[in-house]
Amino acid sequence: MTEKTNHKRLWSRLMEMAKLGATPNGGCNRQALTDLDSMGRALLIEWASEIGCSHHYDEIGNLFIRREGQSPQLPVILVGSHLDTQPSGGKFDGVYGVLAGLEVLHTLTEKEIDTLHPIELVVWTNEEGCRFDCAMMGSAVWTQSMPLQQAYDLQAFDNHARVEDELIRLGQKGQVSARYFPIKAAFELHIEQGPILEHEQLTIGVVKGAQHMSRHNISVWGQEAHAGPTPMSSRRDPMMALSLFLPKLYQLAEEYAPDSRITFGIIDVEPASPNTVPGKLMLTMDIRHPDLATYLDMLEKSEQIISQSCGSLDLEFQLKQSWHAPGVEFSEACIASVQQAVDDLGYSNKVMVSGAGHDAVNLARVVNTSMIFIPCRDGLSHNEAEYASPTDVGKGADVLLNAILSQAV
Amino acid sequence: MTEKTNHKRLWSRLMEMAKLGATPNGGCNRQALTDLDSMGRALLIEWASEIGCSHHYDEIGNLFIRREGQSPQLPVILVGSHLDTQPSGGKFDGVYGVLAGLEVLHTLTEKEIDTLHPIELVVWTNEEGCRFDCAMMGSAVWTQSMPLQQAYDLQAFDNHARVEDELIRLGQKGQVSARYFPIKAAFELHIEQGPILEHEQLTIGVVKGAQHMSRHNISVWGQEAHAGPTPMSSRRDPMMALSLFLPKLYQLAEEYAPDSRITFGIIDVEPASPNTVPGKLMLTMDIRHPDLATYLDMLEKSEQIISQSCGSLDLEFQLKQSWHAPGVEFSEACIASVQQAVDDLGYSNKVMVSGAGHDAVNLARVVNTSMIFIPCRDGLSHNEAEYASPTDVGKGADVLLNAILSQAV
Repeated sequence: MTEKTNHKRLWSRLMEMAKLGATPNGGCNRQALTDLDSMGRALLIEWASEIGCSHHYDEIGNLFIRREGQSPQLPVILVGSHLDTQPSGGKFDGVYGVLAGLEVLHTLTEKEIDTLHPIELVVWTNEEGCRFDCAMMGSAVWTQSMPLQQAYDLQAFDNHARVEDELIRLGQKGQVSARYFPIKAAFELHIEQGPILEHEQLTIGVVKGAQHMSRHNISVWGQEAHAGPTPMSSRRDPMMALSLFLPKLYQLAEEYAPDSRITFGIIDVEPASPNTVPGKLMLTMDIRHPDLATYLDMLEKSEQIISQSCGSLDLEFQLKQSWHAPGVEFSEACIASVQQAVDDLGYSNKVMVSGAGHDAVNLARVVNTSMIFIPCRDGLSHNEAEYASPTDVGKGADVLLNAILSQAV
Repeated sequence: MTEKTNHKRLWSRLMEMAKLGATPNGGCNRQALTDLDSMGRALLIEWASEIGCSHHYDEIGNLFIRREGQSPQLPVILVGSHLDTQPSGGKFDGVYGVLAGLEVLHTLTEKEIDTLHPIELVVWTNEEGCRFDCAMMGSAVWTQSMPLQQAYDLQAFDNHARVEDELIRLGQKGQVSARYFPIKAAFELHIEQGPILEHEQLTIGVVKGAQHMSRHNISVWGQEAHAGPTPMSSRRDPMMALSLFLPKLYQLAEEYAPDSRITFGIIDVEPASPNTVPGKLMLTMDIRHPDLATYLDMLEKSEQIISQSCGSLDLEFQLKQSWHAPGVEFSEACIASVQQAVDDLGYSNKVMVSGAGHDAVNLARVVNTSMIFIPCRDGLSHNEAEYASPTDVGKGADVLLNAILSQAV
């Protein structure tokens, strides 16, 4: 026998939350540890308190909302995701996983279903890593894969505020240790952020693991010079190095298609004057592949390409890995609960790998974890046009509810 | 018979002026219409008033300092350059032409040499075009090649302040019409900003004209997408277009070597997040060549290259010329005065073309004008390491003095 969530209530709350940081093009800009992010969390707490849930923050601002179990001392069933967004993000990335988790708690309360295990809904701090350069920060600290002090000292791109100071300012620096505690099973429901489910016209992705991925800062130093008199042959121009390595890095991704990913998301030069040859070029490079050997091969070759390009122009460079997340295989028990729920509900589905990083990837290293995907239009995410249909949104929450129930009862 | 300037006084004033906006690496950051720029002008006025010169601002903030002639009604001999610098500029670009002009006035006064024609020293507003995106702005307005209102409405990159509002704030919006008046001859002394004189071990460049040059804004639109799940083949990534057209544009410059110049001084993407495929790429392109037909050919081919690269990826683009300065031939009479002065002084020299834009290039379209170059170390300019030797600095001022005397007496 299966239970269903209230699809309309979930959709309506998604639209309500999206008003906080709403952008003119229908997206959302609610970056981590801003006033808007704080307002989103306050709204969630308000909804959770209406169904009698308690809540607390841990030291890194992760927000835990608890629905008590018949045996409070038993390990927790954890569900959740994040509420922060990209600068021009959408209404669903992360938010969906949190509000579907709330919908599960609301449905259980409404139907007076008591579970043996407590269930906790978690909102991880700074998942996006756009305002503070560390994606999945809150869950990284909680799983002890990042020192608390290192996270505290990260500075915002916009105003250079430290994470710790922003937590204090927003009243979200809790007393509870930011460290994992006994968990029976953890689930994260998310839009796919890719085109596969939509393309194959499937409703649910049963996610068995995640890609290997890392982020790198490339810096190239040249020599500033006037755009007019300086002959091309006597320039030391970092943009010339870019013209050599950029095509080769895209070719590298091509060689390892279709599962390879390479992204240059930030690029800048100094002194940034239209009639001065730049003295310095900086860009970010994000590299991903699900197969470890191939991924390591891509890393090695990308470094060779950049080194050879800069070397041929006698330009100094630095390639620095700023973040990485090894790929993971999710818990067989959790995957089985999700697969059972999908089968019982009769929703079309496939087993797949996540191309994006998620807090669940951090969690999987210390507790039993898996993920559930639903399709999103055109595979778009990190984009104001990000969209998932009300039907898929509701069905995803149903799968989450039944997977949780199979573990919690 | 030749006269000489006071080399030590000129060098000492160059070092004194360089303290305003001095950077840790020995350069100068005194951008147009900032407080520092205003302090530089005040210092100049103080020095000029010590030798009895009057001064006034015109409507666009061009500063004129006058040493009266025996016949005040006769056309003026104009000398000058600019005091504003690049964000990481040097001590000499522009500043040298202004302070050498002041040194000429000071020498004449000290030696009690009265000239028939009045001599005016001019400081043009916003020559660099880095804070407000229009190089040689003050002289463009003065020569009627740019409408006053268009210059007033330019906004600063740093704080979006309008030119007119900055002029008012700094008390430099004068009453006098920003329009050229009767001039017998105009001279601008400048460091070469290129390696030719140094390489050939010559002291003076007798400048006969300037390159054709223009500046373009390239915009490419793609679609924002998440760096992880979105397969390379379904991305609409403007950085991929860059990887196609950038090498080809450098090849284009190579084809027309050694006189061609192509510079990408500013580059940026939106939304500038390391794990988001950019939705938009913007960069500036500066193109120059002394030969008109070749220059026009470069313009046409660069547009074809960008269009074909973006077209092959089905990305929209825009190529917009934001500024241009046609090449010019300087006045034969002014060039002859400079050549005579150099020959009389016995300084080594060669006739050459300017690779950079200068206020003199604007002036040449409405009044008799020419330029004088001295070598600078490693051809460097728009750079904190910009340097010219005290000997060359002094000799350049001597040439300026004698060229002016031949026209003014």
